[in-house]
Amino acid sequence: MSQYPYPLLKPPSFCWDRSAASVEPKVNEWIQTLDPLSAEQPDWSRYDAALLGVPLSRSSISASAASENPDALRRAWKYFTTYNLDYEEDLSTLNVVDLGDVRQHVTDIAKCHDNIRQAMKAMRTYHPGVLPISLGGDHSITAMLVKGWKDVHPTERIGILQLDTHFDLRDLADNGPSNGTPIRNLLESGTVRGEDVHNIGLHGFFNARSLKLYADQAGVRYTTLRQARRQGIEVTIQQALDELARKVDTIYLTVDMDVLDIAYGPGAPASTPGGMRTDELFEAVYTAGRHDKVKAMDLVCLDPFKDRGEATVKAGVHVLLSFLTGFKQRERK
Amino acid sequence: MSQYPYPLLKPPSFCWDRSAASVEPKVNEWIQTLDPLSAEQPDWSRYDAALLGVPLSRSSISASAASENPDALRRAWKYFTTYNLDYEEDLSTLNVVDLGDVRQHVTDIAKCHDNIRQAMKAMRTYHPGVLPISLGGDHSITAMLVKGWKDVHPTERIGILQLDTHFDLRDLADNGPSNGTPIRNLLESGTVRGEDVHNIGLHGFFNARSLKLYADQAGVRYTTLRQARRQGIEVTIQQALDELARKVDTIYLTVDMDVLDIAYGPGAPASTPGGMRTDELFEAVYTAGRHDKVKAMDLVCLDPFKDRGEATVKAGVHVLLSFLTGFKQRERK
Amino acid sequence: MSQYPYPLLKPPSFCWDRSAASVEPKVNEWIQTLDPLSAEQPDWSRYDAALLGVPLSRSSISASAASENPDALRRAWKYFTTYNLDYEEDLSTLNVVDLGDVRQHVTDIAKCHDNIRQAMKAMRTYHPGVLPISLGGDHSITAMLVKGWKDVHPTERIGILQLDTHFDLRDLADNGPSNGTPIRNLLESGTVRGEDVHNIGLHGFFNARSLKLYADQAGVRYTTLRQARRQGIEVTIQQALDELARKVDTIYLTVDMDVLDIAYGPGAPASTPGGMRTDELFEAVYTAGRHDKVKAMDLVCLDPFKDRGEATVKAGVHVLLSFLTGFKQRERK
Amino acid sequence: MSQYPYPLLKPPSFCWDRSAASVEPKVNEWIQTLDPLSAEQPDWSRYDAALLGVPLSRSSISASAASENPDALRRAWKYFTTYNLDYEEDLSTLNVVDLGDVRQHVTDIAKCHDNIRQAMKAMRTYHPGVLPISLGGDHSITAMLVKGWKDVHPTERIGILQLDTHFDLRDLADNGPSNGTPIRNLLESGTVRGEDVHNIGLHGFFNARSLKLYADQAGVRYTTLRQARRQGIEVTIQQALDELARKVDTIYLTVDMDVLDIAYGPGAPASTPGGMRTDELFEAVYTAGRHDKVKAMDLVCLDPFKDRGEATVKAGVHVLLSFLTGFKQRERK
Amino acid sequence: MSQYPYPLLKPPSFCWDRSAASVEPKVNEWIQTLDPLSAEQPDWSRYDAALLGVPLSRSSISASAASENPDALRRAWKYFTTYNLDYEEDLSTLNVVDLGDVRQHVTDIAKCHDNIRQAMKAMRTYHPGVLPISLGGDHSITAMLVKGWKDVHPTERIGILQLDTHFDLRDLADNGPSNGTPIRNLLESGTVRGEDVHNIGLHGFFNARSLKLYADQAGVRYTTLRQARRQGIEVTIQQALDELARKVDTIYLTVDMDVLDIAYGPGAPASTPGGMRTDELFEAVYTAGRHDKVKAMDLVCLDPFKDRGEATVKAGVHVLLSFLTGFKQRERK
Amino acid sequence: MSQYPYPLLKPPSFCWDRSAASVEPKVNEWIQTLDPLSAEQPDWSRYDAALLGVPLSRSSISASAASENPDALRRAWKYFTTYNLDYEEDLSTLNVVDLGDVRQHVTDIAKCHDNIRQAMKAMRTYHPGVLPISLGGDHSITAMLVKGWKDVHPTERIGILQLDTHFDLRDLADNGPSNGTPIRNLLESGTVRGEDVHNIGLHGFFNARSLKLYADQAGVRYTTLRQARRQGIEVTIQQALDELARKVDTIYLTVDMDVLDIAYGPGAPASTPGGMRTDELFEAVYTAGRHDKVKAMDLVCLDPFKDRGEATVKAGVHVLLSFLTGFKQRERK
Repeated sequence: MSQYPYPLLKPPSFCWDRSAASVEPKVNEWIQTLDPLSAEQPDWSRYDAALLGVPLSRSSISASAASENPDALRRAWKYFTTYNLDYEEDLSTLNVVDLGDVRQHVTDIAKCHDNIRQAMKAMRTYHPGVLPISLGGDHSITAMLVKGWKDVHPTERIGILQLDTHFDLRDLADNGPSNGTPIRNLLESGTVRGEDVHNIGLHGFFNARSLKLYADQAGVRYTTLRQARRQGIEVTIQQALDELARKVDTIYLTVDMDVLDIAYGPGAPASTPGGMRTDELFEAVYTAGRHDKVKAMDLVCLDPFKDRGEATVKAGVHVLLSFLTGFKQRERK
Repeated sequence: MSQYPYPLLKPPSFCWDRSAASVEPKVNEWIQTLDPLSAEQPDWSRYDAALLGVPLSRSSISASAASENPDALRRAWKYFTTYNLDYEEDLSTLNVVDLGDVRQHVTDIAKCHDNIRQAMKAMRTYHPGVLPISLGGDHSITAMLVKGWKDVHPTERIGILQLDTHFDLRDLADNGPSNGTPIRNLLESGTVRGEDVHNIGLHGFFNARSLKLYADQAGVRYTTLRQARRQGIEVTIQQALDELARKVDTIYLTVDMDVLDIAYGPGAPASTPGGMRTDELFEAVYTAGRHDKVKAMDLVCLDPFKDRGEATVKAGVHVLLSFLTGFKQRERK
Repeated sequence: MSQYPYPLLKPPSFCWDRSAASVEPKVNEWIQTLDPLSAEQPDWSRYDAALLGVPLSRSSISASAASENPDALRRAWKYFTTYNLDYEEDLSTLNVVDLGDVRQHVTDIAKCHDNIRQAMKAMRTYHPGVLPISLGGDHSITAMLVKGWKDVHPTERIGILQLDTHFDLRDLADNGPSNGTPIRNLLESGTVRGEDVHNIGLHGFFNARSLKLYADQAGVRYTTLRQARRQGIEVTIQQALDELARKVDTIYLTVDMDVLDIAYGPGAPASTPGGMRTDELFEAVYTAGRHDKVKAMDLVCLDPFKDRGEATVKAGVHVLLSFLTGFKQRERK
Repeated sequence: MSQYPYPLLKPPSFCWDRSAASVEPKVNEWIQTLDPLSAEQPDWSRYDAALLGVPLSRSSISASAASENPDALRRAWKYFTTYNLDYEEDLSTLNVVDLGDVRQHVTDIAKCHDNIRQAMKAMRTYHPGVLPISLGGDHSITAMLVKGWKDVHPTERIGILQLDTHFDLRDLADNGPSNGTPIRNLLESGTVRGEDVHNIGLHGFFNARSLKLYADQAGVRYTTLRQARRQGIEVTIQQALDELARKVDTIYLTVDMDVLDIAYGPGAPASTPGGMRTDELFEAVYTAGRHDKVKAMDLVCLDPFKDRGEATVKAGVHVLLSFLTGFKQRERK
Repeated sequence: MSQYPYPLLKPPSFCWDRSAASVEPKVNEWIQTLDPLSAEQPDWSRYDAALLGVPLSRSSISASAASENPDALRRAWKYFTTYNLDYEEDLSTLNVVDLGDVRQHVTDIAKCHDNIRQAMKAMRTYHPGVLPISLGGDHSITAMLVKGWKDVHPTERIGILQLDTHFDLRDLADNGPSNGTPIRNLLESGTVRGEDVHNIGLHGFFNARSLKLYADQAGVRYTTLRQARRQGIEVTIQQALDELARKVDTIYLTVDMDVLDIAYGPGAPASTPGGMRTDELFEAVYTAGRHDKVKAMDLVCLDPFKDRGEATVKAGVHVLLSFLTGFKQRERK
Repeated sequence: MSQYPYPLLKPPSFCWDRSAASVEPKVNEWIQTLDPLSAEQPDWSRYDAALLGVPLSRSSISASAASENPDALRRAWKYFTTYNLDYEEDLSTLNVVDLGDVRQHVTDIAKCHDNIRQAMKAMRTYHPGVLPISLGGDHSITAMLVKGWKDVHPTERIGILQLDTHFDLRDLADNGPSNGTPIRNLLESGTVRGEDVHNIGLHGFFNARSLKLYADQAGVRYTTLRQARRQGIEVTIQQALDELARKVDTIYLTVDMDVLDIAYGPGAPASTPGGMRTDELFEAVYTAGRHDKVKAMDLVCLDPFKDRGEATVKAGVHVLLSFLTGFKQRERK
C-alpha cells in the first residue's frame, strides 16, 4: 500500500491550470492536486483538509446521476473566490488537497461500497491530521465512510449531524445498503448509537410513519425544519452540536442536498417543496464547521443532470466553502 | 411457481399496483378509485373526501394546459407518503376516493361548464357527507362548482376563501365566464355576497385599478400578501375564516396556484415575482383545512406543460395533502 | 341517473380506461394486462405477443435512467392508433399482453440479472407460443434474456440481429456484465456463436479498435450504417436475416436506441451525430418483424429523463409497433 | 443635433423600425402594416398578398398554444432576408400586408369561428385581387376560411392540397368543429368534394383505420409520405396540383406543421417520428406557390410554447417565404 | 363596414396596439414612444421619465446576452397593469417615454461606450426635467451614464446607491472598462468619491479580498445582504439614502440584477445562491424611488437567453415599476 | 520570444488525467498538452497537428457564447475513441497537441484580433510542419488566421474552402471586422482572391441579394446545398478542392457550424431550417482532410450555451476527427 493514494483512488479526471494562478486565486486555482506519477508519499502534514470524490449512485433507489457530482463541483470551483465577505475570511491560507475519486465498479455495488470504506480507512491511516470531506454520490456512501472511520478509531464514539429531508432509516433487508438506509446501517451495525444522531430539516410527507416510529424507538434526535426555523437555524444547529459534543468524541456532518427546497435545489433528485433555503443551509454548515468536534463531512445526492443553470451545483460548492470558513475560524475562537 | 407471472413480475406500475401496497401506502396506493364496470352505487358512507378532476382550460384567457393538471397530480402522488411529519398526522385512515374527471367537450365551453355544475350537484346529491375537492382546470370552474353546490343547498349562505394573486373580478360581458371572472360571476349571479369573499395573496401590478374599485364597491374583503406577512400568514387566514364563519354556513376554499412566486410555482401560467412561498401556502391551506365550516376546496391554474422538474405539480399535491391534514385534525379539536 | 358517477364522469384516465374504449382503440386501450389479484393462470393460448418491462439501468457504464423506459413507453401508447397506414395493417386483431416488470433489487445487480433470466425462462415455459418483447433497461439485459431463452431451448442455435452504434463486445473481466458487454457475454458463455451475430448501424468514433479486432476474430458480422445506406437499409436487413436464417433456428432482434442520430434520439444516452434516422429504423424493424425466424425482440438504452418532448419515447413505441406490423404480416406472406 | 433623439438613438426595435430600413430589407422591414387610426380604406390594389393572423387554438383537441403562433412568426421575421438564394428570387418587390389578427372570444368558440369566416369574406370582398395567407391557430380554422371563400365565390369549385400527418376527417358529431375535423366539415357541408382533396404526408400510426375507410368512401385522394418520397416530393406535389387543377377553379393550400418529423418540428403539438423534413416541406410549398390555381394558403398547428430554439417557428416563416417565392415566379413561367 | 379591416381585425399586436388601449392600459399601452419620422422635437415638458435602452454586453467579462434585455423588458410589459395594489398607486398618470436604444457598434466597444455617454448628455441637455432610466446591457454602461451626467452637471456631487452582489471595483488596467469595473472607473476618473458610493447586497465568495481592501481604502460604503436583512432591507436602504443625501446633490441608483438569488434571478448571468429575494429588491427600489435626490436609475446584467420562463425579465419590469411607484409618491410626501 | 507558445497563449484551462490512459486511449487521453512551466521549446518535429483555441465571440453581430466552444470541445473529447470505424483508421498514431487558447482582451476587440493573427504567425514560424486547427470563436477569426498565415508565407496563393450558410461578405465599413465579414476582409485586404474562395452550403433566405451580387462581381465560387446534394456532397467537395488546387498553393478549410440544419446543430447561433445534416458535413471535411493542399482548418460559430444535450458540440468534435481521418490517410494515397 506504499503507493497510496493510488491505485485505490483515481486522480481527478481533469485539473485546472495553476500556472496562471493569480495572487488571489479562484477556488480552482487554490485547491491542490497530487502528482499521480509520483512514487513518493506527499508530505501530508502540510494539508488541512482533503477532498474525496465518491462517484457512486447506482445504489440509489430512484435513478440518479449523483455519480457526476464530484466532477461537476470541480468544474464549478471557477465561479468562486476564496474570500468569504460575510465573515471577512480568506480560505486561501488553508491547504486543501483534492485526492481524486474512489475507484468504482460498474456492476458490483458491494465492491464499490468496500472501496469507499477502504478509502476512508486509508485517509485516517495515512493522514489522520487532515480533515476529510467526501463528495458523493448518493447517501449510501455515508454508512461506508463512517464505518471506515470506525475501523481506524474503534474506541471513538461517533455522532452524526444530518441535514436532510429524510430519516434514511429504511430497512436494509428490503433492498440492501441503498441511499435510503445509511443511518439505519450505522445503528444496526453498532457503529453509531441512535441517541448520537441528530437530523435537522425533516418536513412534510416524505417519510413513512414507521420510520418516524423507528427513529423514536432508536432514540434518534431530530428537529423538523419548521421547528428549526421557529427557534432559528443557527441556534438549532449549535444546540444539536453542543448536545452531541457532550456525548461523543467525533461529530460527522452529512449534508443531503435534498434538504433544500426544490426551488433552491432543483438538482437534488428528491428535493421537495417546503424545504430549506440556501442561505439557511450555508449558515448551518458554517456553524458546524466552527465546532471543534466536527471532524469529517460529506455532501450527497446532488445530480448535475437534473440541475438547472448549475444552481444546485453552485449551492454545493458554497456549502463546502461555508463549512471551510467555519473550520478556519476554529483556531481563532 | 404456480402463481406465475407473479411474484416474479410486478404488474405494470402504471395502473397503481394495489396488490403490492405496503402496510404503509404511498399516496398513490392510498387514494381509492371506483370500478367503472360496476353497475351498483358504491357505499358512499365509507368515504371522507372525494377528488374530482376538472380538465378544462380552454376557458383560460391566455393559452393554458391546466387541463392536464388532474392527471399530472395523480402521477405525482407516488412521491408522497401519507404521513405528515410536521403535524405527526397519518392520512391513511382517511378514506379518499378519486371519482375521475368531469367529461368535457372540445368546442362547446358552455357545455363543459354545465357538466362541471352538474358534477357538483351530483356529488352533493349522492354523497353529501363526502368533502369534495376539485382539481382544475382553470379558475372559471370555481363559479360552476359553487353554483352546483348552491343548486343543492339553495338556502345556505356560502363564503369564499380565495388564495390568489388576482381578484378574478373581470366583467363577464367582455369575454364570458373565463378564468378572470369566477368571483364576479358568483357575485352577479347572487350565489355569493361580496362581503362573504376574502382574498389573500394579492400583490404588485397584476390587477387593474378598476377591479380594486369594483371589489371595494362590492364589499369584497382582501388582504395583500404584504399585509398578511406582516401579521403572519396563519393568523391572517384564521381571522379571515373566523370572520367568514360568523356570517356564512359554508366556506369554499379556492386555491389559485398563481398565488405562488414564480420561483416556487413556475408551472402556474400567471405566477409572478413577489408571490407566496410554498411553505406559506401549505400553512394557509392546513389552517383552512382545520376549520369546520370549510366544506369544499378547489385547486386551479396549474399547467404541467409549463412546469419545471414537476416543482409546481409537487407543490399542488402538497397543498392537497396539507389541507387534508387539517381536515383530519378537525375531529380532534 | 342510477349509474352515477358514470357517464357524467370518466374514471381517472390514468388507469387506462377500457370501459370507454372505442371500437377503434388507441394502443393504450388495445394492449392488455393481467389481473394481479387472480390466482389462476391466464389462458396463454389467446396471446400473440407479450411485453416484458425490464427496468434495470444501474448496470449501465454511464449514469442512465433507462429503468424509467418501460413506464415511459406505456404512458406514450396513448399517442398511437393500432392502424399502420403505410402498410394498411391494423394491429388490433393481434392479442398483446403487458406482463408488467421484472422485479429488481436496488443494490444487488447479479440478483437483478438473474431475475431477468428467470423471467425469460418462465415466459418460454408457461407460454412458448407467445412472442416475447422485452422493454429495457440497459443493454446488459440482452445477455440475460438470450441465456434465459437458451435455458429452455438448449439445442436451439440462436442468432442475433443487432441494431446498434456499438459492438457491445467489451471485456467482462473489467467491470462485469455491464451494458457494454452483452454480445461478448453471449459469445464467451457459448450461448451464441460469433458468426451468428450481425450488427447493423455502426459508425464513427464510438468503438475502440480492439473491439473491432475482437469482432473480426470472433467472426461477428457487421455492416456499418454508411454501407447499409449505400445498399439500402431494407435490403441490408433482409440479407442479414436470410444469411442468419440459413444457420440458426431462432433470430433474436435487439434494438439499442442509441443507433439513432442524436437529432432523432436525444433520449438515448449514447446517441451520436451521424446515426440512423427514425424512418430507417422503423423500416429495419418492420423487415425483421416479417421474418419467420425472428422470435424475440428487445428495445434498450432509452432514458426518458434525457429525452426532449418525448421524441425518443415516441420513436420507441413506433419501433415496437413497426415490428408488430411485420410480425402480423408473416401469416399473409 | 436638431434631430435629437435620432440618429443618436434608434426607435424601440420592437415596433419594426421602418425608418431605418435598409435598401435591402429584412422580412420584418418589408412586410407592411396598416395604420389602425386611419379612417380611410387603404389602396388595396397595391398589395399582392395579405397575411391574416388567426389566433385560435382553444378548439384544439389536445392543449395547444398555437394561438401564439401569429405573433411568434412575426417576431421571427427579423431572421430572414427577402432574397431566396436557391431560386435567385427577391421577394422585396412583392407588396405584402399584414392585416393583423381576427378578433377572438375567450369562451365562445362558435363566435371565434364565425369571425374567421367573416374575415375571409371581407378579404374576398374588399380586396379579391390580393392573395390571402392565414396564419393559425389550429386546423379547425381551415374549414371556416374555405367556407368564407365559398360564401363570396359560391360557384367556384374549390380543391384542397393538404400537407398533413392526419386526415382531419373526424366526426363533427363527437366534439364539434375541432382541429381533427376541418376536411370532413368541408365535405359534409358541401363546400368541397372528396375527390377535390389531396392529402400528402400521411404515415405511421396516427390515423384510425375508420378515417382511412371514410377517406376512401368519400373519394379523398392521399399519398403517404413514403410513397411521395419514392416518386419524389416535388413530382408528387406537381401531379396532385395538376390533377386538382383539371377539376377545380381554386386550389386552397393548407399546411399542418405536424406533417414535420418531431426532430424538425418539435413545436407542432402532434409532430411525430417518421415525418417530413423541412427541406422537403419547403420544396413542396414552393411548388404549390408556383401553380396558378393556388389562390390561398394557411399554416396551422404550430405551438411556440412547445418549440425549441424557435426551430419550428423559423421553419414556419420559411414555409411562408418559400410559398411566396413560387408565387412570385408565376408571372415568369 | 366602411372601417374594414377594423374592427373585425386587430392590428398586429406586435406593435403595441394603442388604438385599442383600454381606459385602463397595460404597461405596453401606457409607455409612449416617439415618431421616428417626425422632424420636430417632441414637447419634452410633458414627460416625467424617459427609458433608454442600452443594448451593450460585448464588454462583459463572461459571455452575456444582456444586450437583448431592453427588448425583452419591452416584450414583457404586457404582463403588467399600471396599478400597484400594494401601495394603491396608479402609474398611468405618469408620462413615461421610451426613447429607444443607444446605437451600438459591433467591434468598437469604445465607440459604444462613447455613444452611451453622449446619450446621457443629450438627455440631460434636451430634457433635464425628465428622469432618465437606463435599461442595460452590462454593468460597464453605468460608468458611461454617470460620466455623461457629470459632463452636463460638472459641479454636482453625485452619489451612487448600488444593489449588487459584487463591488465592481476591478482594475481597469487589466481588461479595460468591462462590467467588473464601473465603480472603480467612476472613482479613478474623479466622477464620484468613494465615500459617496453605498453598495447593498454583497455576500458569499464572489469578490476577491483585494477588492474589499480597495473598497475600504477608497472609503466605499457597503452593507452585506446578511447585515441588511438583520436590520431590515427597507431601513438599510433608507439609511444609506439619507446618509448619501447629506453629502451629495444627486443619487444615481444602479441595480445589478445579479444581486438576486439564482432561484429568483436565473437570467442574471452572475446570480448566485444566497442572494436577494425579489420581494426584497422591489421594496428596496421602491424606497429609493421615493427619495427626492434619486434622479436617475439603471438596471443591468439581465440576460434573457439564460432566463427561465421569463422569471428574471418579469422581475426586471417589476423593479422598474416599483421604482416608478416610489417616484410618483414623492410629490405626496 | 523564446517562451513561445506562452505568454501569447494560455494553457488549456483544464486538462485530462493521462496517468490512467489505457492502451487504447479516448480522445481526451490522446491529445497532448504542453507543460506551461517548462522554459524550453518543445520538440515541435514530433507533432502532426496543433489545436489552437480562439475564445473570441464579442465580435459576433448577434450575442454569442462561441467563446466557450474551445473548452466545450475539450470536455467532449471523452465521448470519442480515436478509431474511425467507417474508414478503419486509428488516429492514435497521429501526434496532436493542444496549444491552449489565444489570450483575449475583454474590451479591445482589435487587440484580440491582433493576438489571433500573431498566434498563427507564431505557429507558422515555430512549427511550420505542424498542421494548425483553430477552434473558434466566431467567424471573424478566420480573417485574422489567414492573414497571419500570409504574413509568414507572403508569396503563397491561398484558397478558401468554406462550408457555410452565409457568404460572410458584409461590408467592413458598417461595423468593422465582425463575424459577417471574414471573406470580404480577406478579399479587400488582398490576402485572397475572389476566385480562390469556394463556399458550399448556402441556401434559403439567409443572405441579402447584394451579397450574392458582390460575390458574383468578386468572382467568388459557391455551390448551394441544394446543388451540392443533387450532384453529391463528396463529389462537390472534391471538385471544388481540385479546382482550387489548380490555382492555389494552400487551401484553408473554414467550417461555420451554422451550415448545419437547426435540427442537427441547435448550438450554432445562426443555424437554420433547410441546412446540412451532420453525416454530410463529416463526409465533406473528411474529403477535405484527404487533400494534400488543405493545410489549415478552423471550426467556428458553435455556442455551447445554446446547445441541447451537447449535440452540436459532439458534432464539432466529430468534424475535427473526421478531418483528421482524411489527413491521416493522405500518406497512404
